[in-house]
Amino acid sequence: MSRTVKVGILGLGVVGAELVNIIKANQENMLKKYGVNVEIGKVYVRDLSKKRATDTSDLKLTNNAYDVVYDNEIDVVCECMGGSGTEETKDYVVKAIEHNKSVVMSSKKVLALYGNEILQLLKEREVSLRYDATVGGGIPITKIIKECFKGERIEKLVGILNATSNFIYTRMEKDNMSFEDALKKAQKLGYAENDPSEDINGFDALYKAVILTLFSMKKWVDIKTLSTTPFSNIDVLDMKYASELGYKIKPLAIVENRESGIRYRLGPCLIKENHIAANTVENYNIIVFKGSNTGVLGFYGQGAGSKPTASAMFDDLVGIIGSDGAGSDGLLRETYRDITSVENVNENKNNLYWRMDVENIVGKLALICTILAKNSVNIEKVIQKDEIEGKIGVVLLTSNADSTTISKIIDEFSENHIEIRTILPFLGE
Amino acid sequence: MSRTVKVGILGLGVVGAELVNIIKANQENMLKKYGVNVEIGKVYVRDLSKKRATDTSDLKLTNNAYDVVYDNEIDVVCECMGGSGTEETKDYVVKAIEHNKSVVMSSKKVLALYGNEILQLLKEREVSLRYDATVGGGIPITKIIKECFKGERIEKLVGILNATSNFIYTRMEKDNMSFEDALKKAQKLGYAENDPSEDINGFDALYKAVILTLFSMKKWVDIKTLSTTPFSNIDVLDMKYASELGYKIKPLAIVENRESGIRYRLGPCLIKENHIAANTVENYNIIVFKGSNTGVLGFYGQGAGSKPTASAMFDDLVGIIGSDGAGSDGLLRETYRDITSVENVNENKNNLYWRMDVENIVGKLALICTILAKNSVNIEKVIQKDEIEGKIGVVLLTSNADSTTISKIIDEFSENHIEIRTILPFLGE
Repeated sequence: MSRTVKVGILGLGVVGAELVNIIKANQENMLKKYGVNVEIGKVYVRDLSKKRATDTSDLKLTNNAYDVVYDNEIDVVCECMGGSGTEETKDYVVKAIEHNKSVVMSSKKVLALYGNEILQLLKEREVSLRYDATVGGGIPITKIIKECFKGERIEKLVGILNATSNFIYTRMEKDNMSFEDALKKAQKLGYAENDPSEDINGFDALYKAVILTLFSMKKWVDIKTLSTTPFSNIDVLDMKYASELGYKIKPLAIVENRESGIRYRLGPCLIKENHIAANTVENYNIIVFKGSNTGVLGFYGQGAGSKPTASAMFDDLVGIIGSDGAGSDGLLRETYRDITSVENVNENKNNLYWRMDVENIVGKLALICTILAKNSVNIEKVIQKDEIEGKIGVVLLTSNADSTTISKIIDEFSENHIEIRTILPFLGE
Repeated sequence: MSRTVKVGILGLGVVGAELVNIIKANQENMLKKYGVNVEIGKVYVRDLSKKRATDTSDLKLTNNAYDVVYDNEIDVVCECMGGSGTEETKDYVVKAIEHNKSVVMSSKKVLALYGNEILQLLKEREVSLRYDATVGGGIPITKIIKECFKGERIEKLVGILNATSNFIYTRMEKDNMSFEDALKKAQKLGYAENDPSEDINGFDALYKAVILTLFSMKKWVDIKTLSTTPFSNIDVLDMKYASELGYKIKPLAIVENRESGIRYRLGPCLIKENHIAANTVENYNIIVFKGSNTGVLGFYGQGAGSKPTASAMFDDLVGIIGSDGAGSDGLLRETYRDITSVENVNENKNNLYWRMDVENIVGKLALICTILAKNSVNIEKVIQKDEIEGKIGVVLLTSNADSTTISKIIDEFSENHIEIRTILPFLGE
C-alpha cells in the first residue's frame, strides 16, 4: 500500500532546480523503498518568465509564496530561497509551520536570525524542521550528531565553517599572497561571491556556529548579543611569525558549552600547528567536537555547491518522509522542547599574540617585558625579528590577561613608542 | 510496560570490565528511555580467581564460554575477548548466532579473518551483528555510514587506521627519531603494545580495512588473498626528501571500490602534503571517503583505549535493544543479504618514489633518466642531493609504471652501479 506525500518548493534557483531534479530522479526508488509517492506540489518563483535549470513544463509555478505555504494538500515545504529577503523567507517558514507543514530549510541566515521564533512555534506543533543544508558544506553534520551521538554531551567545538576564508588564508600562507589578491583569486575560481562581505566579515561563520550550537548542544543564544572579528585583518607576515612560534592562523569559530551559557569566539585565531584545524586547507571545512565520552572527533568536507546542498535537502526530506518514528500520517514528528535559550558568556581572559615595531634601541625588549611583568601578564614565547627600515619587530604570546589589563598595556606601549601592529587571540590547547 | 533484555558477556579484561560498569550506570536510564530492563546474564572469564576492574559480587561468572552462548535466557552477547584465541572467539560468536542471539563484537581480527563465515550465518538468521568497536578508534564510523550515507556509493577510502604507526611516523618527522626509537617512545607512553608486531607489520590496519569495506562498500574480500607492506621500512631521510617534493610519508590504507572488485593497498605511502591524511598526526586516526554525491568527507578521532571501546560497544548494544525497527521481541533485526564476496583487484600500474645512491660521476643522473626513458617510464620530479662519502643521492618520482618494467629497471640500475635505497608508492591525486 502506498501513500502520497506532496512537497512544496520555495525558490527555483540553482539549489531549487537541482532539488527538483533529485526528487524526480528518486520518485520510483522512494515508492519501492518506503511505499511513498513523492509528488511536487506548487513551486514558488519570484519571476514566472525566467528560464530555469530544470524542466518546468510539469511543475505548477506560482509567484505567490503563500499559494505554497497555505496549500492544504502540501505536507512538506522545502525552502530554497538563498540569502536575500530573509524576513520574507522567515515569514514563509513560520506560516508553513503554523499550517502544520514540516519544513526543510537551506537558508542559514534565516535560521540563525529567527531561529528562536521558529523553534518556539515548533514546540507547539507536531511537525519537523530539518536544516542539514545550512551548515557544514557536504558534511551531513546535523544527521551525524543526531544519529550517532545520542548520549554525548558536546563540550566544545572548534571549526573552520567558512570555506571561502579558508581558501584565502591557504593562498596567503602557501603562495605568499595578500588577503586582497587571494580574495580575487577565490572570486575568479568561484569560491567567493561577487559581494563576499558575509564570508569576509565572519557573519556566515557566525550563522553556522549558532546553528551548530542549536543541534549539538541544544542551546540557543540570541545572535544580536554576539560579535565576530572580520577574517580580513590578516597580514602574511603574521602567518610567518605564527609559524615560527608553532602556530597557524586560521579563520576559526570556537564554541564552548558552559554551565552558565555558551561562549562564542569567531575571527582569525592562532591555533597549534598539529591541531587538525590548522591543517585543514583550501576550500575545506572542518568541525572538531570534544565530547564527554568520545574525546576529540573531527568532521572534514568541502564547502558545498548547489548539488551537495540540494542533495542534503533531499536527505532531510527522506528523513521526514521515510522515517521509522512516524506519526499517523507516516510523516516524522519531532519535539524541540529540549532546546533552551541561554546567554552568551563573555569571558574576560584572553591568550594573545602581539606583533610590535620598536626603534632598534638596546633595552626596548626589556621595556616591553617590564611593562607586561608590571601588569602581571605572563609571556609564553617571544621572538625578536631583524631590523627593517630602522624598526625592529617583536613578536610574543601572552596568556590569560583580562581586557582591562590589556587596554592598560596598550596605552603604556603607546607612551613608550612601541607600535602595535597586530593583536590576535591564540588557542592554547 | 517494560521488557527485560539479558546480556551475556565474553571476557572481563579492561574492556569487558568497563562495559559492565557502563551497563550498570545506564540501567535506570535505559528503563526510562526505552522501557527496557537491561540485565547482565552470565559473564565468561578464563580465570575465575583473577581480580577484575569491576565489582563482580553481583555477576554470574563462568569459566565455560558455552554456558553464555547456549544460555536460552540471554538475548545479546557482547564479545570482549581481545586479540588472543581468535579461533575460540570465532566459535563463540558462531554458536551465539546459531542460538539466535544478536552479537556485539570488539575483536577486529576475528571479524576480519572469519567474517565471511559469520556473515553467511547471519544471512540465514534474524539477529543483528554490530561491531563499531572494531574500527576507527573513537569515531562511530559504522554508525555514521549506516545512518548518514544511505543513498551513497562509497568509491574510495584513504585512511590512517593504525594510531600506533601514525604516532611513530609523527615522532620521526617532527623529532627526527629513528623508527626504532620512536617505537620505544610509543611503548613507553602506552601507545604501542609490548609486542607491537600486529601494528607494525600492518595487519591491524588490514583487519580494519577489510571491516571498513564490509560496511561502507558492502563487499567482502578474503583476507588471505591480501598483502600489506610493513610500516617499519621507513627512513627519516625519505621523509625529508618526500617533504621537498611536496609529500609526506604516512602509514596508509587505500581501498578502491571497483566494478571488478576491491583494490587494497596498505603500507607506508607518500601522500600530497595538503591532503588531510598527510596532516593527521600523533595517535590520531582519519578515514577519508570519496562518495558519489557528497564528494570527499573525512572523519578524525583518537586511537581508542578501553573506555571509548566499551562505550562504542554499549552504543551498539543500545542500537540493538532500543531500535525503532524492532522485531516482535523488541530487538533489532538486520539483514546482511546485500553483502557480496568479491575478488581483490591486483592493479599492475604504480606511482613510485625512488631514492638512489650513485658515485658522483658526471652523467650518472643522465644515465638514470635514459634508462627510465628507454623503458617509457615518465619522471614527474627529480632532485639531486649533496655528496656524502663519495655518493650522491638522487630522488625521483615516476608515474604509472607496471611491475614488469619496474623489475627491468631495477636490474639495469644494478648493472650500472646505481644503488637503490628506497622504493615507495605515492598517491597521485
